[in-house]
Amino acid sequence: MPDTTSDPCAPCAPEDVRRIACIGAGVIGGGWVAHFLARGYDVTAWDPADDAGEKLRRLVSAAWPALEQIGLADDASPDRLTLSPTLAEAVADADFVQESAPENLELKRSLLAELAAATRPGVVIASSTSGYPMTEMQTAAEDAGRLVVGHPFNPPYLIPLVEVVGGERTDRAAVAWASRFYDLAGKSVITMDRELPGFIANRLQEALWREALHMVANGEASVEDIDASITEGPGLRWAFMGPCLTFALAGGEGGMAHMLDHFGPSLKSPWTRLAAPELDRELRDAMVDGCAEAAGGRTYADLVAERDQGVIDVLRATGRLGSTRR
Amino acid sequence: MPDTTSDPCAPCAPEDVRRIACIGAGVIGGGWVAHFLARGYDVTAWDPADDAGEKLRRLVSAAWPALEQIGLADDASPDRLTLSPTLAEAVADADFVQESAPENLELKRSLLAELAAATRPGVVIASSTSGYPMTEMQTAAEDAGRLVVGHPFNPPYLIPLVEVVGGERTDRAAVAWASRFYDLAGKSVITMDRELPGFIANRLQEALWREALHMVANGEASVEDIDASITEGPGLRWAFMGPCLTFALAGGEGGMAHMLDHFGPSLKSPWTRLAAPELDRELRDAMVDGCAEAAGGRTYADLVAERDQGVIDVLRATGRLGSTRR
Repeated sequence: MPDTTSDPCAPCAPEDVRRIACIGAGVIGGGWVAHFLARGYDVTAWDPADDAGEKLRRLVSAAWPALEQIGLADDASPDRLTLSPTLAEAVADADFVQESAPENLELKRSLLAELAAATRPGVVIASSTSGYPMTEMQTAAEDAGRLVVGHPFNPPYLIPLVEVVGGERTDRAAVAWASRFYDLAGKSVITMDRELPGFIANRLQEALWREALHMVANGEASVEDIDASITEGPGLRWAFMGPCLTFALAGGEGGMAHMLDHFGPSLKSPWTRLAAPELDRELRDAMVDGCAEAAGGRTYADLVAERDQGVIDVLRATGRLGSTRR
Repeated sequence: MPDTTSDPCAPCAPEDVRRIACIGAGVIGGGWVAHFLARGYDVTAWDPADDAGEKLRRLVSAAWPALEQIGLADDASPDRLTLSPTLAEAVADADFVQESAPENLELKRSLLAELAAATRPGVVIASSTSGYPMTEMQTAAEDAGRLVVGHPFNPPYLIPLVEVVGGERTDRAAVAWASRFYDLAGKSVITMDRELPGFIANRLQEALWREALHMVANGEASVEDIDASITEGPGLRWAFMGPCLTFALAGGEGGMAHMLDHFGPSLKSPWTRLAAPELDRELRDAMVDGCAEAAGGRTYADLVAERDQGVIDVLRATGRLGSTRR
């Protein structure tokens, strides 16, 4: 049993969560609602917009066939969604709160303070913020120890990743509780031990996105070319093998060490507007060691075979393998 | 019939290519060899390294089961590979030349000059360079009009993308010939009308890669976290829907316009070390119009359904869907 089970910070163990309050029911909040319903939880939702309830039910209906394909939890039903007329009613009986309000720091600050005041003592409250550090969002809350970031990717009912991190006033136990809860709720969790604006995945995709915007702004590439360059290229590998291990394979049998020694100089090239860090011995070794660790016992040949099978499977799954000769 | 068929710049039409010379037989050059063999071409390879032949045969053998799965062209056989003792013999009868030497500008310059001198007049010669503009590589060649960039992704026998672009001295007909040839050879081609260091996909992944290196250098994230943040997150979508259209869906029914108006301010946030371009009206409209064009007649609901099915298919194909409840 994890030692978080007896954690005094939450009124119930992550295993015992039954009712989840989703605050904000737009694209992300609504996606969370669909995910939690599919996992068999009771969900209460609140959103101040007039048409929020109608939009939310439409989103859940549209998502449900996909969720049926993945496999629903026992007793999962869209009927276990309740729309609450007030924030206070939405969180009154909640064992966990997921906040997905618009990305506005002042709004988040006051909303989290309100949620911390209205929610039962010890119940963990997670924010879906795309990038604000919790330290900056929790300033107005009295009971700030249970406030964490639980940052999902769109759509939350299908993309596994959730990044979990606390702020300066967050209890470490609340971070551990949230990570354990998301894991039980079927998510793939990265728990960060320090705050970083944009967390990890958004920093990576934001760098890519900004480079794309620069290219369009300068007339260097079209939106269509940019999208095709990813879906026909590196995107196929990134569905199952991350950029570090992928680049390690580009180094051939010499792996990441050869890759950095061979392509290291290209870090000085104007291949993006983003300046590179100094590739000193320490960084080189950190990358080489990190890739060796990520590879585990797998040899270069093992990894190549795995990558090749992965690309073939992804090509087939996305309808890009067909006739014998394309 | 494409008008390139009668192009006087090449001794044969793209449709009539039979023999391809692959110059350099490392990870990329060897990957090209495997690809062209699987597509039913005769391939002559040359590489100055002592053990190049042995390594190349091992690479082709390792790749062949994957290529069989995809489906080989009629008469495709690894036996149609010839290792040439000299560069001149390798290119003597070639209808097309693919150069994949190490990434070193001086080396590329002299090698391309040597290739242009040894290859039959008019035969198109493509460089696999990861980022050098052809204008800088073709300076030493006398017959530089048929020199183009044909930049693949690793492994070239599985990843469809090839970026094609010429230099200042390249004939436009040679660029068109190469694009048509790669298309016939089963690749997914992006033809660029201007040179840009790193082309398109490498600029995007280099921005992401540099941000990753900064994070590791600063101890902000581990190699493992970085890889997982992509494979469990945005990488799943990028296997079939590019970053622009993906972000358009994050805007909900309001699409890219809503997304830019809502998340535009985050471009000022320190979410990556890469500074953003000014999101002026022109750039905003270019993104909105480009996404509308990319969406074609598909509605928001169509795109959401397509994305959801894509993510599910990719999750299933990569072994991440299994039991009813994860």
